[in-house]
Parts: sequence; structure tokens; C-alpha cells
Amino acid sequence: MTASIIDSIIFQGIFSTDEMRQVWSDENRTQKYLDIERALAIVQARLGLIPQEAADEIVRHCAIGQIDMGKLREQTERIGYPVLGVVSQLNALCRDKLGEYCHWGATTQDITDTATVLQIREALAIVERELGGISAAMARLAQQYRDTPMIGRSNLQQAIPVTFGYKMAGLLSAIERHRERLAQLKERVLVGEFAGAAGTLASLERGAMETQAGLCAELGLKQPLIAWHTIRDNIAEVGAFLGLVGGTLGKLSMDVKLMMQTEVGEVYEPYHHGRGSSSTMPQKRNPIASCYIHAAISVVRQHAASLMDAMVADHERSTGPWEIEWIVLPEAFCLMAGALRQSRQVLEGLQVDPVAMRRNLDLTDGLVMSEAVMMGLGKYIGREYAHDLVYDLCRQSIAERKPLIELLCAHPEIAAHVDRAGLEGMLDPANYLGQSALMVDRVLATLR
Amino acid sequence: MTASIIDSIIFQGIFSTDEMRQVWSDENRTQKYLDIERALAIVQARLGLIPQEAADEIVRHCAIGQIDMGKLREQTERIGYPVLGVVSQLNALCRDKLGEYCHWGATTQDITDTATVLQIREALAIVERELGGISAAMARLAQQYRDTPMIGRSNLQQAIPVTFGYKMAGLLSAIERHRERLAQLKERVLVGEFAGAAGTLASLERGAMETQAGLCAELGLKQPLIAWHTIRDNIAEVGAFLGLVGGTLGKLSMDVKLMMQTEVGEVYEPYHHGRGSSSTMPQKRNPIASCYIHAAISVVRQHAASLMDAMVADHERSTGPWEIEWIVLPEAFCLMAGALRQSRQVLEGLQVDPVAMRRNLDLTDGLVMSEAVMMGLGKYIGREYAHDLVYDLCRQSIAERKPLIELLCAHPEIAAHVDRAGLEGMLDPANYLGQSALMVDRVLATLR
Amino acid sequence: MTASIIDSIIFQGIFSTDEMRQVWSDENRTQKYLDIERALAIVQARLGLIPQEAADEIVRHCAIGQIDMGKLREQTERIGYPVLGVVSQLNALCRDKLGEYCHWGATTQDITDTATVLQIREALAIVERELGGISAAMARLAQQYRDTPMIGRSNLQQAIPVTFGYKMAGLLSAIERHRERLAQLKERVLVGEFAGAAGTLASLERGAMETQAGLCAELGLKQPLIAWHTIRDNIAEVGAFLGLVGGTLGKLSMDVKLMMQTEVGEVYEPYHHGRGSSSTMPQKRNPIASCYIHAAISVVRQHAASLMDAMVADHERSTGPWEIEWIVLPEAFCLMAGALRQSRQVLEGLQVDPVAMRRNLDLTDGLVMSEAVMMGLGKYIGREYAHDLVYDLCRQSIAERKPLIELLCAHPEIAAHVDRAGLEGMLDPANYLGQSALMVDRVLATLR
Amino acid sequence: MTASIIDSIIFQGIFSTDEMRQVWSDENRTQKYLDIERALAIVQARLGLIPQEAADEIVRHCAIGQIDMGKLREQTERIGYPVLGVVSQLNALCRDKLGEYCHWGATTQDITDTATVLQIREALAIVERELGGISAAMARLAQQYRDTPMIGRSNLQQAIPVTFGYKMAGLLSAIERHRERLAQLKERVLVGEFAGAAGTLASLERGAMETQAGLCAELGLKQPLIAWHTIRDNIAEVGAFLGLVGGTLGKLSMDVKLMMQTEVGEVYEPYHHGRGSSSTMPQKRNPIASCYIHAAISVVRQHAASLMDAMVADHERSTGPWEIEWIVLPEAFCLMAGALRQSRQVLEGLQVDPVAMRRNLDLTDGLVMSEAVMMGLGKYIGREYAHDLVYDLCRQSIAERKPLIELLCAHPEIAAHVDRAGLEGMLDPANYLGQSALMVDRVLATLR
Repeated sequence: MTASIIDSIIFQGIFSTDEMRQVWSDENRTQKYLDIERALAIVQARLGLIPQEAADEIVRHCAIGQIDMGKLREQTERIGYPVLGVVSQLNALCRDKLGEYCHWGATTQDITDTATVLQIREALAIVERELGGISAAMARLAQQYRDTPMIGRSNLQQAIPVTFGYKMAGLLSAIERHRERLAQLKERVLVGEFAGAAGTLASLERGAMETQAGLCAELGLKQPLIAWHTIRDNIAEVGAFLGLVGGTLGKLSMDVKLMMQTEVGEVYEPYHHGRGSSSTMPQKRNPIASCYIHAAISVVRQHAASLMDAMVADHERSTGPWEIEWIVLPEAFCLMAGALRQSRQVLEGLQVDPVAMRRNLDLTDGLVMSEAVMMGLGKYIGREYAHDLVYDLCRQSIAERKPLIELLCAHPEIAAHVDRAGLEGMLDPANYLGQSALMVDRVLATLR
Repeated sequence: MTASIIDSIIFQGIFSTDEMRQVWSDENRTQKYLDIERALAIVQARLGLIPQEAADEIVRHCAIGQIDMGKLREQTERIGYPVLGVVSQLNALCRDKLGEYCHWGATTQDITDTATVLQIREALAIVERELGGISAAMARLAQQYRDTPMIGRSNLQQAIPVTFGYKMAGLLSAIERHRERLAQLKERVLVGEFAGAAGTLASLERGAMETQAGLCAELGLKQPLIAWHTIRDNIAEVGAFLGLVGGTLGKLSMDVKLMMQTEVGEVYEPYHHGRGSSSTMPQKRNPIASCYIHAAISVVRQHAASLMDAMVADHERSTGPWEIEWIVLPEAFCLMAGALRQSRQVLEGLQVDPVAMRRNLDLTDGLVMSEAVMMGLGKYIGREYAHDLVYDLCRQSIAERKPLIELLCAHPEIAAHVDRAGLEGMLDPANYLGQSALMVDRVLATLR
Repeated sequence: MTASIIDSIIFQGIFSTDEMRQVWSDENRTQKYLDIERALAIVQARLGLIPQEAADEIVRHCAIGQIDMGKLREQTERIGYPVLGVVSQLNALCRDKLGEYCHWGATTQDITDTATVLQIREALAIVERELGGISAAMARLAQQYRDTPMIGRSNLQQAIPVTFGYKMAGLLSAIERHRERLAQLKERVLVGEFAGAAGTLASLERGAMETQAGLCAELGLKQPLIAWHTIRDNIAEVGAFLGLVGGTLGKLSMDVKLMMQTEVGEVYEPYHHGRGSSSTMPQKRNPIASCYIHAAISVVRQHAASLMDAMVADHERSTGPWEIEWIVLPEAFCLMAGALRQSRQVLEGLQVDPVAMRRNLDLTDGLVMSEAVMMGLGKYIGREYAHDLVYDLCRQSIAERKPLIELLCAHPEIAAHVDRAGLEGMLDPANYLGQSALMVDRVLATLR
Repeated sequence: MTASIIDSIIFQGIFSTDEMRQVWSDENRTQKYLDIERALAIVQARLGLIPQEAADEIVRHCAIGQIDMGKLREQTERIGYPVLGVVSQLNALCRDKLGEYCHWGATTQDITDTATVLQIREALAIVERELGGISAAMARLAQQYRDTPMIGRSNLQQAIPVTFGYKMAGLLSAIERHRERLAQLKERVLVGEFAGAAGTLASLERGAMETQAGLCAELGLKQPLIAWHTIRDNIAEVGAFLGLVGGTLGKLSMDVKLMMQTEVGEVYEPYHHGRGSSSTMPQKRNPIASCYIHAAISVVRQHAASLMDAMVADHERSTGPWEIEWIVLPEAFCLMAGALRQSRQVLEGLQVDPVAMRRNLDLTDGLVMSEAVMMGLGKYIGREYAHDLVYDLCRQSIAERKPLIELLCAHPEIAAHVDRAGLEGMLDPANYLGQSALMVDRVLATLR
């Protein structure tokens, strides 16, 4: 029986992914505890702090299969934290009380925090791969539709033409910055914790820093400068990063939703049989993936704020703020994994309809080209006068529901300078795309 | 395998409760769908809209045990929503195509929303019961310690005396208001949804409103005035309510944490063997429950904001905002169930140490009674002069680390009016409790 | 020089209103302090606790004009709170040290909290009036367009017809619930605070509760059961209420924005010369007011969460949480005042285009009426067969871009039962509005 | 008249700083518009796109003193944005219609966004300086109290000793990471915007990219790869950064508040006459600055979430999300400026009481040294046996309220190995500081 949407048998494949859920599962968390206890024993034996025999025995039992998870639940509910339960079981598994040497000099939070970092490392690898996939799909779309005109919209009003490739390239530029952010934050975040009850490592009379260094090296993490039991900017930064990525996916899903409107119909989420269609309303093509993305990222940005709240920790080991991370971090990653996968699938299978884009460009019978006409006529009759003249003709076009081209051709002052073909050229969206293609190229050029 | 803290095998009993998790389980949600389809068939047969034979056959199959949950997951991932999958399975279970009459005139969201309301009803009943338990425990503490002096603290500084009962009564007054809020919001929230694809019930040529009325009556819900598919103030109000309750539990846990500090030691969470103690630091008595409460309510207040975000729904059926509720509502209730139970257990087993409270009252050697002394002496030497005199003696007491009583007794102007016994009376916290007890009585008098 | 958008000389009229800004101004807050000190003196003289002469003298000086605001700023920065500065200035204004009797038995937070409640009362009165105005405007629109067909949209896809009046009535139902919430919360919120340093009123040896009762009566507030210096569910409830109202306004603005799209064009914000138009893009009609509403309510829902955070207060007078309210409460009200006014203006001047609504209904050449046709033909050829037949013809219509009516008329099985006129009737949106009008009537019937 | 706490005459010096308020003032914003129009004219004349004479005339009038701010307010309320009003006034100021050449090819949002970036640059410089000041003050405290023992606390329980320098060094490590984050994000954020109505620069037939490059160079900003009108990860990253910094300041203020408690009394905010003291409670020493910090950063983390919400922008120019930034960005910076200044002042004037720290270390009569004693005795009687023995004696110490040293000395098994002096050594906190000093050194070594 599960209650959260993430673990719901029915919804888990929609709002998250099995792969990310596995990272934050009880099994993986517990295995990480064991990995750390194992590494600690190896390092401390190497340093002569515990007998090699003890380390060998401990290592032999650091496998999730040997842990009684039901018992662990009981221990956790009694103690409040699972680490001691794992240590106690591990201890009991070892012969000749050699298990006493496990967890040597460590405190509960050392193991928990380091395990969390190892989980974050796995989780960020998934995020990184998905960002890569999204980047590739966006780049492909940007390249393919580099010169495909569509209407640019401002305040949900048709404004002037852009290209669909340009639209994709803008999003792509954000994804590339996210990848840069990720590379930078990993340097700050993938750091071990091994510091003892109050962070001073007083629990080890000798070999304290050597153990810390060795443990981190064994786990492939950076060594901390100082304990970070209650210094949590690193964890909160991960949440902020997820929130920022979510913002970009939210913008993507917003645009897809708007372009899929019945009245717009320019792009469609990939079609799967039955998905997003209605049994009684055959005209519908629902942006299902975009709905899930929208919802997930709305929640994740609040999680980012929660993780900042968790930074307000007291003294050397906090009283409540730490547990905020326990709730929020797995969920933020799980929801983002769902949103990233949905986004990637949308992009990889996106159906683009250049004909519909062109149809929408023509919807206003030329009005969206008025800026281009103003500029085109400006050469002949002066910019300001051209502006006023075209503006008036546009109003006339709206009022009388006549195509702008007819009014332009019929106007003597204009006809004196430009013929219908010339005016049609000015009204052609393909001639007013500005630097759309160049900007696409600029963004594509930055791809690694 | 579960990834969320709520469904974690290890943590589920700490951060939530089985009872609340059951409410939001796949099984209960699906059963609610069946309950609604069942009620719909019964009502529509009664109204002559579908054959009685069909209703009988449908009713026969509206049991969760007949639903293939694995198949439902597949259907949900394909369609995007589980309701149609349930209907399709139900349909297939019925003989002679009688299942065609199930879900008559309904849309997916009708069933989903009504099921959610039924789940909210069950969830709120748990909240209500826990608030009742918390109220009773607080009332008992308020009564028992109605006259037990302790220091009141302002800005984390010792200020003037209060009683522990007074402290409890303040919290109790908030719990009583929450119960009132709950009663009021149930009137707005426990309302059914049955409105068809765009809320107009066009899907039923006749008997539309009668079906709606009958269905709601059958389920014990109020009939809506109009469809609320995208009018979600009711759902968001539930989230806001949970956030408000969380705030009060957060204040409780904050005070318990502070009073449990080694340097304060006035109250303790109930002791369970091993819980909150440390194997190497025997002096520790960790406020474990308060930690969990603090963390849970920090997240729930963000959920309240998310549910307000979900109100920004588009048109007649929203494109993403609705799904925010799917994520947030179960989690907010599950976390609150954990926080409520932890709070109740803390209160029901709270260990109160009046001796320590008295010791802390005496910590400043009388300085916290200076206001009382100022007022006491004011009768003899004038209020303002008394203020200045006592204030100076207090500074002297701090500077010379001498008990205030000695300085007061030694001062000729004071000694001329009041003897040591009189001064000791003024310095007795029990004589400066103001209306503490009366306020306790006022709050207790409001209990239902 | 001002830095906040609320007080910006340039933006203050857009994002807030002068009226609401006045409520939260330094001048009004300070005047409220004086009003309370005045009432306190009057009541305490009446009770014989202070000399009538003192009360008279105090009352004479309780006017904002007598306070030196520059000096008050200095005092506030030194002390940390403005109340003592006001009391000190008031004291100095009184002759013969009679000012010593002002603030008798009160603590800083008593005055601040009660002043806040008085400001909330004024602010809620504005909210109430605006909700009334919005309600009236929505009711008028619901009535006027009770039977005006437009397409209902689900997942941003055209679904089936509704009426514009129905759309308004749905929103109206939420506004009416907000008005009910407001009436209920005022009972809990409009309560005075007068409790002394730790809430026990020890500061008054006699007449404590009588003073509290009298002061509250004098100010038209309810008397508290117990001090609420750190019991802040009342204040947080106000924030939650504003967040809920914001959600409804957000939904309104979302729908207006979507309906104003160039490709939709069904309603428009009221036109003011120059507003929302572009000097170079004459086709644009920007939903400016909706933009402001969207932004304001997005921020206010975060304020609601902040006020829940402020509930986590410590002991008898909190250390930081209280100050959260100082920041958030004025801003939430000011932003909401702007959003409410913008919403009201949008509604009062909304331009509705029934012709465009009809045009959009026809956009799919009948596909949006397929459900109606299925039901209409069902009588003749069986519901299920009708469903399959119509569904196939719809797909054909999409594929071959032929109007559905032509395919229906041309189909022999259909033609055998219904002629073109009959089919046109089935395809007429006006015949498939379901209970739209009735639901409008149901909502309008609840108006007070 | 001002309504926000930031602009309140009374509170502005407490919750913000004049310096930061100036950055976000109407005057500075408007001046930035003028700076950009000025730079644009210079660059476009240089490129031969507009006449040099026009540029000269425009430059002559790009001074805030020439703008009529009252008129600008009117224009803004009518148009919805201030940029066009400024351009229109600037235009009118220029002789011979030369002003027509100003704003050449630009759109409103180009100017607004670039102005915002210029304001962000000024604001981040303040943040950077304050972080530097905080870093220096923390480094000084870390160095000065590198070896000063105090009790480390876990779960608000006394745990084992640390040094006060260690406590400061932990915070310092976070501040140094924030400085690194700031340096990295400036590369992404300090980028100009110049892109025209839909971001394509179609508004400039020639010289488009050259103008963009020249403008950015003139303003000292990086040139964008592509328009970012609706790609807002940069702005949201600034908010997230402020939220993260806030988290660290929140932790600082939390620890200061807790250490200032009457029952703890280890450090004090710097004393200013009258500040944080009470006229009737002379024993109080209120942590006023910490209160303000706590409140400000609680609000700022919600602002961070709002700015992520603002990322969900539609199409090429957004409809509401952009305006979220207008509200939130100035406020987040203003509140953080207040919090940073308060934090810096607290740190620069912090009163540290090593005697009180020592007194608290001794509060448990040695119990907090039990881990040290266990380890010390382990050498003689075996670690596990030592643990059990000492644990039992600790319980006896608590139960019988006897100092641990007496019980240790009296125990024959212990006395056989270690004499009183030896035991006193084990119980001396100064001998159980672990790597506190080394960790301080490690952090200090990273300072730039």
C-alpha cells in the first residue's frame, strides 16, 4: 500500500521514473550506509586504527541482502534514525565481536549525510543525462526548423514572425546554462561527511583527518574543509538547481500547451494510441505530458524554498531542519525525473506543423507584418510618415475587415513607390525574420 | 520499492500513519471510483435513466477485488488518467453489455473529484479526531498545571512568571479555533462533482440535475451549485487549513524543543526505551518527535501555497494545475497525520518538571521579579521613583553578582517601608502570576 | 525615494491602490497606536485605575499631528520597535507628568498587535467592498450572457459548448464562498490584544480583565480569551484567505488572457486610450490588467506560506517570527488591493464578442458537436453504434477536411432517419448547452 | 506616504539599507533607462545607423533631472510600462525631431531587462561587499576563538565540546561558497538584452548584431547568444542565490538567538544604548538584529520560489510572469541588504563570553565528557567494558545528582588504573576538542 503519487502503483510511471525511485529507495539508501561502513573499515584498517581482521569481517557483511529490513523498520521507529539499526545488525552479523570495530568514530549523521551525497551523485547523473537528451532534441529541432516561420507572440498577442528553430534555440540556451550550473555545483556538493558527534572528530584520538581523507577518496568524494552537519548550503543549492531546471521545463510545457490549442494547432505532443484523446470528443488532442510537467515543477519550486528553510539549523546538529531534507530531497528528484523524461519524450517526438504555423501567420491578413511594411515604406516616404500611414491603414483593415495588401495597393502615395509585388514582398513573413537563424546558429555553436 | 519518505518501509510509521496512508492508497482511491459508479447506477436506475437490470449488474461488480490493478496501471499510463481504465474493466466484468450503462453521462473528472472529496472526508475525520485528542491532552495539562509557576520568555530572554497551564491554554485556544475552521470548511468542501465534459451536464438529455442531486445524496455529500472542475477554492482551502494547523503544531514543537534544552530542562517528550537517547552521550534527551513535527509542517505550508497555485486553472478543465492537487493533497494529509500523532503523543506523555521550572525562575536571583518589586514599592515611594531605584539595584545585582533581595534589604529607603519578609513576598513568582489561572479557566470554559 | 513596487511613485497606482497603501502607512499605523493609548486611558480612568485628569490630558495629545515622525524613526532604529517612541513622545507632550499614566500596564506588543488588527479591519473592509463589486459585475455578466454559446475548453482543447454566463457563474460561486469565509474569519481575527509582558496582565494589580474588556469594547473589537502574542493562527488565516482569493482572481485573469489571444478573440479587457496597444503592432490588444493580477497573486500565495512560518513562534513573545508579519501583511494586502481593483475594472468593462464566440464554435466544422450528434442518432440506430459511426465520420472529416454535416447527410444509414435540417439541429451548439442556464440561475439565486 | 516595510519612513533603516533602496528606486531605474538609450544612440551613430547629430542631441538629454516623474507616472498608468514614457519625454526634449532616432530598433523589454541587469550588477556589488565584510568578521572570530572551548549541541542537547572558533569557521565555509557562487552566476547574469519585439532584431534592417554587441560593450555587459525575454533562468538564479545566502544568515541568527538565551548567555549582539533592553525588565538582552535577520530571510526564500514561478513564461514575451520579477526582485535585494548589514554588525561587534561557555560546559558536572572518559578508560579496561561502566556511572550521576568525577574516583576498577588527576584530565573539555582548531585552520586557509 502506497499513498504518495510518486510511489503509487498506478501513477509512479507517470510522475516519476523507476530509475530515480530506485536511487531514493530504502534499499539503495541502506546499501549506501553499508558502502560507507565498508569503506570506513577498509580505510581504518589500512591506517592501522582497527584490526585488518575486523575490516575483512565487516566488509564481508556489507550487503543489503544480509539486512533484515522489517527489523530495521522497528529499530528506526524506536531510535528515530536507521543508521544505528544498520550498524547494530551489521555488528551482530560479524563473528567474534569484530563488528565492534565498524562505525568507528562515526556519528549517525556522518553516515546519513554521506549516503545522501552518494544518492545525490546518482540522481544528478540521471538529471545530467536527461538534460543532455533534452539538449540534443532541442538542438535537432532548432536546426531542422531554423528557417521555418511562425508568428512570435507577445502578451499572447500575435506580434511579428520568428522561426520555430529560434523558439527552440532560446530554450536550448537555458538548458546549456543548467548543464554549466550542474558542473559547478557538483564541485561543492559531492563532498563527504565524517566528523563525529559535534563535527570535531574528537571520537578518533588518532588518524582522524587521515580517516576522513581516506574515506572520501574511497567513495570518490571530495574531503570537506570542516563538518557540514548544520551548514547546508550545498543541499539547498541542489534544490535550487532543480527548481531552476523546473522553470525551464515549465516554460517548454507552457508553450507546447499553448501551441496545441485547437485554435492554434502548431505543434503536438507525440501521439500514442489512446493517449490524450477522448472517446466522445474526437477533435481533442490533449497535451498530457505538458500537464504532468506543469504540475511537477510547480511543486518542486516550493521544495526549493523548503530546502532553504532547512538551512536554518541550530548549533552543531539540528533539531528538525535536517529532517526537512529527508522529506523533500527524494521527492524533488523523483518529480523532476518524471518531468525531465516527459519533456524529453515530448521533444523527441514533437510533431511540428509548418503549414499551421503559416496559416496563423496569415490570420490577421497582414497586420502582423505592419512593422515590416512601415520600415519598407520608410525608405520612400520617411519613417515617421510611413508609420502613421500604415497604422491608419491597419485600423481601416481591422474596421472594414479588408486584407492589408488591398488597402496598401489602393493607396496612391504608396502605389507611386511600390507595386503589388513589392508590397507582397514586404508582407512576406519569410522576409522579416531578422536574426532568427543567426541566433539559432550562435546557440548551436556553444554545444559541447 | 518506494522512494518517498511517506511510503518508505523504514520511515512510513514516523512521518505518517498507516491509517492516513490507507485513505490515499491506490486501493482506496479505486474503491471510491467504484463506490461512485455504483451510486450513479443506483440513482439512474431509480430515475429510469438506465435499466434496473444494468444497475444491478454494475453494482455487483463495484468491488476493488474485481479490479486488475496491474492492468489499471497500464491503462493509466496509456490514457493519462485511471478512471477510464476502471470503467473499462467494470464494463468488461458485466454480462450482456450491461456495463455500457455505467459512468452514464459522467466525465473522468467528475469521478476523480468526487472520489477526492470522499477521501478528504475520511482524512478530515482523522484530523478532527486527532485535534480532539490534542485538545483533550492540552486541556488536561492546562488544568493540572494551572497554577504551576514557570518563567515566561520574551525574545528568548527570561521576562516575568507565567504558569505552565497558561502556556498550554494559549495553544489550546488555537486548537479550538482550528476545530471551528474545520467545521466551517466542511460545509464548503464536502460537495460532490457530477457535471460532464465541460460542466454543463449536456451529456444527459434528461434527468441531469436529478441524477446530480441523487448521486450526492447517495454519497452523503452536498450538491454543487455549479461545476467546480476548475473552481478550486475548496481544495485549496483544505490545504490552507492543514498549513494553519501545522503552524500551531510547529509552535508546540518549538516550545518543547526549547524547554528540553540541557540548560533549561523543564519538560520532556515521553520516554521510550532507546528513543532520543545516545549510546555514548548519556546526558542527552533528544526531542525526536518535535524534530519530525518541525520538518513536516515546514513542508506542508509550502503545499498550501502549491494548492493556491493549482487554483489558477484554465477554462472548463485545466491543463496542469489540476495535477498539482494529485501530488500535493495526499502528501499534505499524510505528513499532517504524522505530525498530529507525534504531537498528541508528546502531549499525552509529556513529562513536566515543576522543580526545574522553579529553578529557572530563580536563575537570575530575583531580577525577573523586578517589575513586581517596582510595582510593590511604588505604593510606598511612588511608582516612578520605585522604577528608577529598582532598575539601579538590578544593574548593581548584575554587575556585582549579588542577589537582588540582599540589595533591596540593605537599602535604607526601602527598608524604611518593607521588611525582608515583605520583599521576599514581592520576589515570589507565585505572587506575580497575574491572570494566568483566570485565562486558563476562560479557555477551558469554551471546550465543547 | 522608494524601492518597493508598492511604494514606487511610478508603479504604486498599478500594483496597489492609494486607499490600501494608506491603511498600511506609517501615519495610519502610528495613529492607531494613539487611538489605542487614547482608548486605554479613557477606560482606565473610568475604572479608577488612573486619574481622570491624566486621561483627559493624554486624550488631548493622541493625534498624529503632534508626533515628530523623524524623531520616531530615530527612536525606532535605536529601540527596535516604534511603540515606545510614540509613548515617550506622548508622555513628553503631556503636562505635569500626567503622561506617566499612559500605556498603563501595556506592553509594546499589545499596542502593535491591536493596531495591526485595527488596520486589518480597515483592509478587510476594502477587500469586502471589492469582492462585492466583483460579485456584482460577475452576476451582471452571468445574467447578460446566460444563454450566449461559446466553446467550453478542456486541456486547452475545444470540447463542447457552454455559455459565457455559465463561465462567469462558476467564478461567481467562488467569490461568494470567499465572502462567506471573510465573514467567518472576522469573528476570529477582529480581537484585541492587551496582556502585558508575558501575556498574564500581571502588570495591573487590579482591574486587569476589566481594562482588557473595556479597551476592546472601546475599539469595537472582541475580547481575547487569552493572550495571543505567540498564538498567530488568526493572522496566518488572513494571509491564507488572501491567497485563496488570489487563486480565484488568477483563474479569472488566466481565462481572460486566453480568450484575448489573437487566435481566439472572444473577450477583451476594457479599452483605455493607449493602454495595451502597441505603437508599431496595431493588431495587438494586450491583457495588461491580467498580467498585473497574475503577478500579484503569484507573490501573495507565497506570503500566505510566510505567515504560516510566522506561526512557529517561541515561548511567550517570539524572536523573529513576529517580524515576518510586519514585512508580509502590508504587502499582501497592498498587492491584493491592486489585483482586486484590476479584476473589478476588467469585469466592469469587459468587452464580450458573441460573434467571435460563435465563430470559434464553428472552427472545427462541427466536430465539437460530435457528442451531441452521437446522442441524437442514438435514438434511431443505438447509442453504441451511433458512437462508432460518428467517431469514424469525425476522423474522416479531419482527414479530408470536410465539414461534418456533409458527411452526415451523405451517409445512407443516417439519412434514412434524419434529414439535413434535423442534423443541423443536432449540430447547433445552442441545442447542446445542457444545464448551463440553470446553473447560472442556481448561483445567482444565492446572492445576498 | 509609504506602505511597505522597506519604504516605511520608520522601518526602512531596519529592514533594508538606503544604499540598496537607492539601487531599486524609481530614480535609479529611470536613469538606467536613460543610460541605455544614451549608449544605444552612441553605438548606432558610430555604426552609421543614425545621424551623429541625433546621437549627440539624445545624449545631451539622458539625465534624470530632465525627466518629469509625475508625468511619467501618468504615462505608465496609461501605457502599462514606463519605458515608452521615458522615450516619449526624451524625444520631446530633443530639438528638430532628432529624438525620433532614440530607442532605434529597441523594444520596451530590451530597455527594462537591460536596466534590471544594471541594477542587479549594482545590487550584487553591495551583496559581494557585505559578504566580504561578513567573511572577514567571521574569520577574525574563528581565529580569535580558535581554541576557546564551548559545548557543542546536538538536538539542542549538550553533546561534546567544540570551540567557538570552530563554530564560526563552519559558517565561514558557507560564506566562502556563496562568494564562489556569486562569481559564477555573474558570468551568466550580467548579460544585456537587445532583441526587438519578438527577440529577432528584425526591427533593424542592418547593423542588428553590431548594435547589440556595441551596446553591451558600452554598458560593460556580456552579449547574449539569443534573446532572453522569456528565458529567465538568469533572473531566477539570482533569487535562488539570495535565498541560499539567506539560509546561512538564518543559521547564524538562530545560533546567536540561542546562545543569547538567559539560560545560556554565551554571546551577545553588540550593545547599543537602549537597543534590545527593556525599561521594566533589566535582565533582558534582546537579540534584536537576529529577529530582523530571521524574518527577512524567511520571506526571501519564498521570493526565490516566486522567481522560479516567473520562469514559466509564455511564447516570446510573457503575459504576467515577467511582472512577478518587478515585484519580487527589488524586495528580495532590499530585505537581503538589511539582513546582510544586520549580520555584519552582529559579527563585527559580537560580545563573546568564554567564562559563560566554560560554565555551561560544566553544567552537567562532567556528563558531557563521558565519551572522552569512555575512550580514555578504554585503553585500560577495554573499550566496550569502559563504555558500559561509564554509562552506568553517568546514570548514577544523574539519578543521585553527584558529580561524575566523584563516582569515577570512587570506583575501584577505575581507581586501579587512573588517579584523580588523570580523571580530571579526561574530564577537561580542553583535552577533547578533536580537530576543532585544525578545521578552523583549513577554512581560514581558503580565504582569498
